[in-house]
Amino acid sequence: MAVYTEVSDDELAAFVATYDLGALWSFKGIAEGVENTNYLVHTEKGPYILTLYEKRVEREDLPFFLGLMEYLAAQGLPCPTPVRDRRGEMLRELADRPAAVIEFLEGLWVRRPGVPHCAALGRSLAEMHLAGLGFDRSRANRLSVGSWRPLYESFGCEADSIRDGLCDQIAEELAALEQAWPDTLPAGIVHADLFPDNVFFLGQEISGLIDFYFACNDMLAYDIGICLNAWCFESDNAFNITKARALLNAYTEVRPFSDDEFDALPILARGAALRFLLTRVYDWLNTSKEALVRPKDPIEYLRKLRFHKGVESAREYGLGDD
Amino acid sequence: MAVYTEVSDDELAAFVATYDLGALWSFKGIAEGVENTNYLVHTEKGPYILTLYEKRVEREDLPFFLGLMEYLAAQGLPCPTPVRDRRGEMLRELADRPAAVIEFLEGLWVRRPGVPHCAALGRSLAEMHLAGLGFDRSRANRLSVGSWRPLYESFGCEADSIRDGLCDQIAEELAALEQAWPDTLPAGIVHADLFPDNVFFLGQEISGLIDFYFACNDMLAYDIGICLNAWCFESDNAFNITKARALLNAYTEVRPFSDDEFDALPILARGAALRFLLTRVYDWLNTSKEALVRPKDPIEYLRKLRFHKGVESAREYGLGDD
Repeated sequence: MAVYTEVSDDELAAFVATYDLGALWSFKGIAEGVENTNYLVHTEKGPYILTLYEKRVEREDLPFFLGLMEYLAAQGLPCPTPVRDRRGEMLRELADRPAAVIEFLEGLWVRRPGVPHCAALGRSLAEMHLAGLGFDRSRANRLSVGSWRPLYESFGCEADSIRDGLCDQIAEELAALEQAWPDTLPAGIVHADLFPDNVFFLGQEISGLIDFYFACNDMLAYDIGICLNAWCFESDNAFNITKARALLNAYTEVRPFSDDEFDALPILARGAALRFLLTRVYDWLNTSKEALVRPKDPIEYLRKLRFHKGVESAREYGLGDD
Repeated sequence: MAVYTEVSDDELAAFVATYDLGALWSFKGIAEGVENTNYLVHTEKGPYILTLYEKRVEREDLPFFLGLMEYLAAQGLPCPTPVRDRRGEMLRELADRPAAVIEFLEGLWVRRPGVPHCAALGRSLAEMHLAGLGFDRSRANRLSVGSWRPLYESFGCEADSIRDGLCDQIAEELAALEQAWPDTLPAGIVHADLFPDNVFFLGQEISGLIDFYFACNDMLAYDIGICLNAWCFESDNAFNITKARALLNAYTEVRPFSDDEFDALPILARGAALRFLLTRVYDWLNTSKEALVRPKDPIEYLRKLRFHKGVESAREYGLGDD
């Protein structure tokens, strides 16, 4: 929630001059984003985001992320386009950090998404999945099923300091999901972090899908599991089937599910819940009390996981209802 | 250096709808400013700053500050104009804070001001002082000479934890300045905090004078003392007479000094140094180590104070040189 890397007026003016953006008019550090440093830059040509990549993003992944954003934007998806400098480069360096200038997308992220927002999300997600099939780079999902056990073992029963018995509950889920995890479903590029703060709306229309820094290759329906968790539960952790129905039916109108995907949806949603439970437990245990960024509540994801464990068919998510 | 008060998309959209600004397009919390919460808001009509006033600004002072900004902007000064809502109000409330929407001024603040920047500052400062003479509200300077002793006594010899002997040095200066402080010089509205981060430039032209939240009535030349300290010392604390000459001569071309002002300038600059030394010592001693905002170095102002103590005539600042 802060600017991590300070850039001076001279440094930034010299940097912007290597792009075809006209004069630099202003720049302000944005107090959003926990991974990177972001500046909102106004130039003669319009508003842009300048991102300096901090240590949580691997430098070797950046050509994939930036290339993907450029590719999807060119396909008509509302993704921010990285700007190329006069030499044609998207990935640059500034203040000893990898850096990129990216088109600013207008829009607001919705704190309390409603049914129409979920429907719009479902459509855009399916469109993104279809468009991504043509992208010719790939990146493994470093937070997929194979990474969960080492992540779990890194904290083990320290998790019980958050809630009694959490350690055993995770161990049990992990074993079950490792067994049941599918690997032959339709795959492609997934966003893998499409929470409400990464989707901008103008009215009820999506104006921006942002933050592709977890994007990778995985089963497409896994991305839906992540979105069901992030968009279709209320603040009291109750599942909202009306929102899920809207999301799923809008998605399948654009990209219909295979039978296998239909059958696998509950296990994928459960796995998606475990993945965020694991990283949230890890962050909870590894964030110092003085940190600027308050870690997110892991127990929210334990509750979601339990919900999906009780789901027997994707029909219980509203899929296929009229 | 952070957003203190979170505003939701719904709250902000409803708030903006009470202004004649068209649709809300986006808003981003700005990681600048230590006193207030600032959002950069894009609407159909352009960019604006939304400020939520946090506890360090007194609510009863806000009509003065906002009225002054509006008045000076109307006089052609590059000050941000507060926007009036549909009912004609500038001062509003949002998220339980006093709030105002203010025109966004493009421009960069200069980390290392050069001689032309100092000349531009001198001109604008004099223009602001002249324009301010027509403003019909007033506000006492709560950080003028009368406040220095109580501020000093609030920490006393705790100051020695910063540097041995600081307590006695301040006491001695305080006594000398209380004795010598003038009170019959030309007075009017002063900005009282015109540091480089409060002055925006586009090229070498000033595009914005911002942050009027210390503005008050005081001797006009006291404002110049503040600017000499903030603009005309190098990072090694050496006084740069070329910059001071540029600032002072540009100022006096617009508003010539009286003889009394000329004579009083060294004492005013010394008092300005003591005022910032006192508040910086106070902040240093009263900021918890975990605070987001790192307090500024008090010793920098002790060095400036000592420099002015050795100055016998404003001529030593370059004033009157060709």
